[in-house]
Amino acid sequence: MLQIRVYRLVPLLLCRMFLFGNVSAGEAPSSISLMPIPENIMFTELAFRVDTSFRIVIEGNAHERLYSAATRMLRRLSERTGLFLPQDFIVPDAEVESPSLTITTQRAGNIELGEDESYVLVVSSRGIGLNAETDLGALRGMETMLQLLTADAQGFYLPGVRIEDRPRFPWRGLMIDAARHFMPMDVIKRNIDGMAAVKMNVFHWHLCDDQGFRVESKEFPKLHKIGSDGLYYTQSQIKEVVEYADNRGIRVVPEFDVPGHATALIAAYPELSSAPGTVTVERKWGIFYPVLNPASEYTYEFLDRLFGEMADLFPDPFFHIGGDEVEHTGHSAEHWDNNPDIQRFKAENNIQDNGTLQSYFNKRLLAIVTKHKKVMIGWDEILHEAMPTSVVIHSWRGRGAMERAAKLGYRSILSNGYYIDLIQPTDIHYLNDPLPEDVQLSDEGKGNILGGEATMWAEFVSPETIDSRIWPRTAAIAERLWSPRTVANVDDMYRRLDRISLQLEEHGLTHEKNYEMLLRRLTGDRDIAALKTLVDVLEPVKGYVRGRLKPHTSYSPLTRVVDAARPDAAEARRFRIAVDRYLAGLESGDSLANSLMYILRGWKENHLHLSVIITRSPPLAEIASMSEDLSRVADIGVESLGYIQSGVRGDVAWEKEALEAIERAKEPRGQTELMILPAIEKLVARALGNIPTK
Amino acid sequence: MLQIRVYRLVPLLLCRMFLFGNVSAGEAPSSISLMPIPENIMFTELAFRVDTSFRIVIEGNAHERLYSAATRMLRRLSERTGLFLPQDFIVPDAEVESPSLTITTQRAGNIELGEDESYVLVVSSRGIGLNAETDLGALRGMETMLQLLTADAQGFYLPGVRIEDRPRFPWRGLMIDAARHFMPMDVIKRNIDGMAAVKMNVFHWHLCDDQGFRVESKEFPKLHKIGSDGLYYTQSQIKEVVEYADNRGIRVVPEFDVPGHATALIAAYPELSSAPGTVTVERKWGIFYPVLNPASEYTYEFLDRLFGEMADLFPDPFFHIGGDEVEHTGHSAEHWDNNPDIQRFKAENNIQDNGTLQSYFNKRLLAIVTKHKKVMIGWDEILHEAMPTSVVIHSWRGRGAMERAAKLGYRSILSNGYYIDLIQPTDIHYLNDPLPEDVQLSDEGKGNILGGEATMWAEFVSPETIDSRIWPRTAAIAERLWSPRTVANVDDMYRRLDRISLQLEEHGLTHEKNYEMLLRRLTGDRDIAALKTLVDVLEPVKGYVRGRLKPHTSYSPLTRVVDAARPDAAEARRFRIAVDRYLAGLESGDSLANSLMYILRGWKENHLHLSVIITRSPPLAEIASMSEDLSRVADIGVESLGYIQSGVRGDVAWEKEALEAIERAKEPRGQTELMILPAIEKLVARALGNIPTK
Repeated sequence: MLQIRVYRLVPLLLCRMFLFGNVSAGEAPSSISLMPIPENIMFTELAFRVDTSFRIVIEGNAHERLYSAATRMLRRLSERTGLFLPQDFIVPDAEVESPSLTITTQRAGNIELGEDESYVLVVSSRGIGLNAETDLGALRGMETMLQLLTADAQGFYLPGVRIEDRPRFPWRGLMIDAARHFMPMDVIKRNIDGMAAVKMNVFHWHLCDDQGFRVESKEFPKLHKIGSDGLYYTQSQIKEVVEYADNRGIRVVPEFDVPGHATALIAAYPELSSAPGTVTVERKWGIFYPVLNPASEYTYEFLDRLFGEMADLFPDPFFHIGGDEVEHTGHSAEHWDNNPDIQRFKAENNIQDNGTLQSYFNKRLLAIVTKHKKVMIGWDEILHEAMPTSVVIHSWRGRGAMERAAKLGYRSILSNGYYIDLIQPTDIHYLNDPLPEDVQLSDEGKGNILGGEATMWAEFVSPETIDSRIWPRTAAIAERLWSPRTVANVDDMYRRLDRISLQLEEHGLTHEKNYEMLLRRLTGDRDIAALKTLVDVLEPVKGYVRGRLKPHTSYSPLTRVVDAARPDAAEARRFRIAVDRYLAGLESGDSLANSLMYILRGWKENHLHLSVIITRSPPLAEIASMSEDLSRVADIGVESLGYIQSGVRGDVAWEKEALEAIERAKEPRGQTELMILPAIEKLVARALGNIPTK
Repeated sequence: MLQIRVYRLVPLLLCRMFLFGNVSAGEAPSSISLMPIPENIMFTELAFRVDTSFRIVIEGNAHERLYSAATRMLRRLSERTGLFLPQDFIVPDAEVESPSLTITTQRAGNIELGEDESYVLVVSSRGIGLNAETDLGALRGMETMLQLLTADAQGFYLPGVRIEDRPRFPWRGLMIDAARHFMPMDVIKRNIDGMAAVKMNVFHWHLCDDQGFRVESKEFPKLHKIGSDGLYYTQSQIKEVVEYADNRGIRVVPEFDVPGHATALIAAYPELSSAPGTVTVERKWGIFYPVLNPASEYTYEFLDRLFGEMADLFPDPFFHIGGDEVEHTGHSAEHWDNNPDIQRFKAENNIQDNGTLQSYFNKRLLAIVTKHKKVMIGWDEILHEAMPTSVVIHSWRGRGAMERAAKLGYRSILSNGYYIDLIQPTDIHYLNDPLPEDVQLSDEGKGNILGGEATMWAEFVSPETIDSRIWPRTAAIAERLWSPRTVANVDDMYRRLDRISLQLEEHGLTHEKNYEMLLRRLTGDRDIAALKTLVDVLEPVKGYVRGRLKPHTSYSPLTRVVDAARPDAAEARRFRIAVDRYLAGLESGDSLANSLMYILRGWKENHLHLSVIITRSPPLAEIASMSEDLSRVADIGVESLGYIQSGVRGDVAWEKEALEAIERAKEPRGQTELMILPAIEKLVARALGNIPTK
C-alpha cells in the first residue's frame, strides 16, 4: 500500500521525497496543507504557475458528473485566485488549446461501496496530469489539486509533485441528525460540499426520531404532517440531495430508527404503539418509552410499505434501521412488559426476553429490507446471534463491540470515538483508529471494518451552529479514514486543520463566520472584542453534561455563549502549547515569557471592559463570574511568571489562594468551561518549585 | 394620516409624545431603533419586562399564517434574549394562562395589493396588546415589537408605548435578478425574511434575461434545459418560495422580460428570433441584439402557452413582462430592420417605426396576460399612447416618466433612485421620495403612485455578496416607502440602520459576516487586520463604472477586494462626520483632534503591515498602490491637523505635494475607490487657511 514509484521524468536528485507512511507529515513544506494526506507524495522542484491561461481538458468519454465537477473546480480556482479564467463550461468534445490540466479517466464510477477512488496527480512546470480509473478518483484528485494551490510574490502556483493516492477505508461518513433539530436544505448541501472537500463519501442522514419524522411520505402522510411540526424534506428535496451528493461522489444512506426512538412515528400512527393511548411529538431530549409493537402484524405491514417507499427514494443499497436504545429491562421496557398481547406473543413464540424479542423484530425487518433490495445496517444493538452476517453493524457504544462483530463475520463501521456532538478536542477523534496496529483481528476480520462515520447528533445544534460542531474537526476524522495509519502527527494535523478550515468557508460553511455573528447578537452591537477574548478560551461542557446542567427542549434557544463557544478552543490550545514550551525551556531568552505575560495581562484586564458590556447584555449575565475568573486566574499566571522569572518561590498563603481561585474557576458557568486552567496550574506548580527546572 | 389618538389608559402626564411627522425622529430614546418608523408613536413610562413567563395568545379565529408567524416570533425572542420560554407551538384554541402578548385580528388578510396592513401596538407594564384588522397587520406589528426589545442591567424589556401604524405606500418591493447570476433558494428565502423584518411586501423576481431562463417549464422544457446552464428553480421550488413569502405577508411578482433581453429564450427556441441562425446563452453583460419576432404568430402562441403556465405558478394578480431596453433605432434595431418579414408586417399594418412595433407587441402581450387573469406591469418603455391605463408602469429611467404616467392615469411604481446595484450611499436612496411634497400631481395622480422597489441587478453579485448589496441599505428604502414623508433625518437613519443591520443577521443574511470571510479568503489566513483597515474605507466604484473599467462575464470571480468592499463604507462616513465636526468647531478642547490624529496615524502606519501581506496574497496586488495612497493621504491629514492645531499655515510646496497626492489617490484601483479623500481635502484646505475658522 505504501510503495513509492519514482516518477521517471523527474531526476531523482531533484526530488525531496515524502513518504508520509514512514516520516512525519510535519516534514512537508509548511506552505502545503493537504488534508487528508495522500498515500504517496513526492515533491519535485518544478512548480506549475497558475495564470489566466489556465484551461482544463477532459480526455476520453467521461461521466457527465466529471464535466460539472471540473467546471465547479475551475470556478473555485478563479474565486480563490481572483483570476479571470477565460474558459466557461467544460463540455465533452471541446477543443482546448494547450490545456493546463488534463484529466483522464477510464470509466464512469459507481456511487457505491468499494468503488475505485484512486488517482495519480502529477504537477510539473509544463502542466498538470490527473489520471484516475473512475471519475470519483478524479473528483478526489481535484480536491487535492486545489489544496496544493499556493501563493508567493509572483502569484499562484502548484508545487511540482507526484501524488499516488487511494483511501484506506471505503466507508468515510458523516451522519447528520435532522430529526432532533430539522436542518434545512442549505445546511445539508454545504455540508455535503465540505465532505467532498475532504474526500468523505457517505452522507448518513438520520431522518426519524422521537422528535420528528422528516420525510414526506405519500404512503403515510400523517408521518410528515403530524410527525414533523411542519419541518420535513419533500420527496423532491430528497431527490435533490441525492443528486447533489451523487455529483460529488457521495452516497446517501438514510436512517429510519425503529423500533425505539419512535415517538414521532407513533404520534402519527398510534396503532403502531406497544402501549395504549396517543402521544405527541417529543420536544425533550433523552430516551423515551414509545416503541413499536413487535407482536403486531400491522407493524410489519406498515414498515414494509414505508420502507418500500423510502427505499425507492434512496438509490444506495444500504438502509439504516437504527435499532438503538431499546432498553430491555426495568422502566423503559414497561410498554412491552405491560402489553398482554406482547406477553402472549412472547409465550406463544417461546421468546424468553425482550432482547430476543427485538432480535425477532430485527429479523422480520431484515426480510422487509432485503425484499426492497437493500442491505440492512443498524447500531450495534442489532447484533444478536440470530442475525445473519449480511447485516452491517454500526458501532457506537465501543470499539470492542465492533471488533467482536468483525470477528463474527459482520461488516462494521466505527462511530464510537467520532461523536462530534460531545465537543471533544480534535486529537481524540484523530487518534481514534478503526484498525489500530495492535488490533486482534485476522485479515478477514480486518477486511470487515469498512471505515467510520462522524456523528452529529442534534440535541444542541441549530442551523446556525451545526457547522461549527462539524467543522473543522470532521476534516481530521476524514484524514483518519483516508490516510495511512501512520499519518498521526497531532501538531501537524492542527497546523493543516487551521488552513483547511478557512478553505471550507468557500462552500458557504458557517463554522468560522457565525462565531462573531453570535457574539454580535449577544452584545447587541459590534463591540465584541472583550467578549471574544473570553469566549476564545471557553468551550462548551463535554459529553452529555450540558443537558444535565440545564434541561433543554427542541425549542430552547441555541444562541447563548455556550453555542458561540467552539470545540477545541484554538486560543486556549495555543496558550497551553506556549506554556509547555516555556516550562520545557524550549526557547532561550525571555521572549516566550514576554509573550505569555502579554497574553495573561490582556486576560487580566479583560473583565474591566467586559463587565461594562455584561451589564447591558442580559444573556451574558450567566458568564459574568467566568469573566471575573479569567481575570483572576490570569493574574495568578502573571504572578507565577513573576516568581519563575525571578527565581523566587511563591509562599504558602499565595499557593492556597491561587489554588482555591483555580478550583473555583473550574466550575462550569452557562454550560461552558474555561480552558486555560491546566496551563495556569502548571505555571503555579513551577512557581512553587514543584516541577524540576531544566 | 398623522393624527395622534392618545391611549386613554395612559395618563397624559406620563407620556412623552413622539409625532415623527412633526418632530425629529432623533428625539426618540436613543436605545430605540425602529425601522421603518411608525406613523404614530407615543412613549409612556411603563415598560413591560420580558422574562421566562412570556406567553402569547391569539384571540379570535385567525388565519393559520398568524399562528406560525407568532411561533417564529416567539423563537426569535427566545434566541435574541437567550431566555428559555416555555411555550412551544402557538395553536388555535389553546388555553394560555396570563398571556404577555395578546394578538387580536378581525379577519384573514389577502396577500394582494392594498390589503390592510395597519396595526395598533400597546405596551404597558401589564402586558402587550397587538390589534390589527388583518393578520398582515399583526405580522407587521410583531416586527415592530421585536425591534422595540431593549436591554438594561435588569434584563430585557419593551418600553411602554402606543403605536398606531400603517404604510404610506401599498407597494414596497425588492427586486432580485436571479437571471444574470442564479441565486439559490437559501438566498431567496433569507432575503424574504429580511424584507418581512422591515415591512416590505412585494418580492419581484426577475427570472429571465439574456443570461438565463430560471424556471422549469413543462410546456417548453428547453427553456430551463438549454436556457439556464442547469441553474433554475423547479416548479416545486417556485411554489415553495411563493408559500414562504405568503407566510410572511409578501406577494411574489414574477418578471419574464420580453421582447428584448431574450437571448436565453432564443437560445432554447430559435424560432422566436427576429434574426436567422442560433445563439447561445449570453455570458457577458450589456444590451444584446436577440429580440423576439413581433411579426410572427408563433411568438404569441408561444408566449400564450408559456405565460399561461407561469401565471398558474404565481398566484399574484400582477405579472411583469419587462419590456425594457429594446432599442428602436441604430445598431440595436438591426434584427428588426433586417428581417424582411418584419418589414412587410410593418408595411401591411401601417406601423411606422420600431417604437410602434413594440407597442403593437405589448398590446398583443396585454391580451395574453389579461386572458390569464393577470394585470400587466412593464418597465417604463411600455408606456405608449396606445396602451390602456390598466397596465402598471415601473419607472427606472427617471421620476419624470413616472409622474407623466401617473398624470395619464397609469398606476406606477418607482425604482429610479432605488438601484441598489449602483453602490450609492444609503442617504441618496433614503431621500428619494416617490411623492415629494412639491410633486405636481392631482390627488388622483398621487393615488396612482403605488410605491417603489429596490432593484438588485445581478451582474456583479454572487450568492456570497448579494446580501451586502441589498442590506442594510434596503431597510432605509423600506422606511421611505412605509413611514411618513417627514421622517427624513439622515443622521438618525444611519444610527438606526447600524442596529437594524445586526438584527437582520438573525435571518441568516450574510451582509455582515461575509465581509471578514472574503477578507480571509483574500489573505488565505486569519491575519486580516491590516487588510480590513484599508477595505473599511474603500467602496466599489459607483454606477456602471465597474464593467467599463474591467469587462466581466457571468463566470468572472466575485471574490476580489471590490466584492468584499461594501457600499456606504461606515468607517469612511464616520471619519467624514468627525472631520466636519472638528472643522465646524463643534467640540471644545483637543479631544476630537486627538481622535482624528489617532485614526490618521493608524492609516498612515497601515501600509507597513499590509504590504507584507500583499506580497504573499496575489489577489491583493491590484490594491497595493491604494494601500500606499491611504498611508500617504493619512500622513497629509496628520500634517494638516498639525498646521491647524498649531495655527501655522501650510506653504505652497506642501500644498502642491499634498494636492497632487490626493489627486493620484482618486484613481480607482481594482475597481474600488478610497472614500476618505473629500475629508482629507477639507483638512488640507483648512491647513492652508482657505476656510474661515470659527
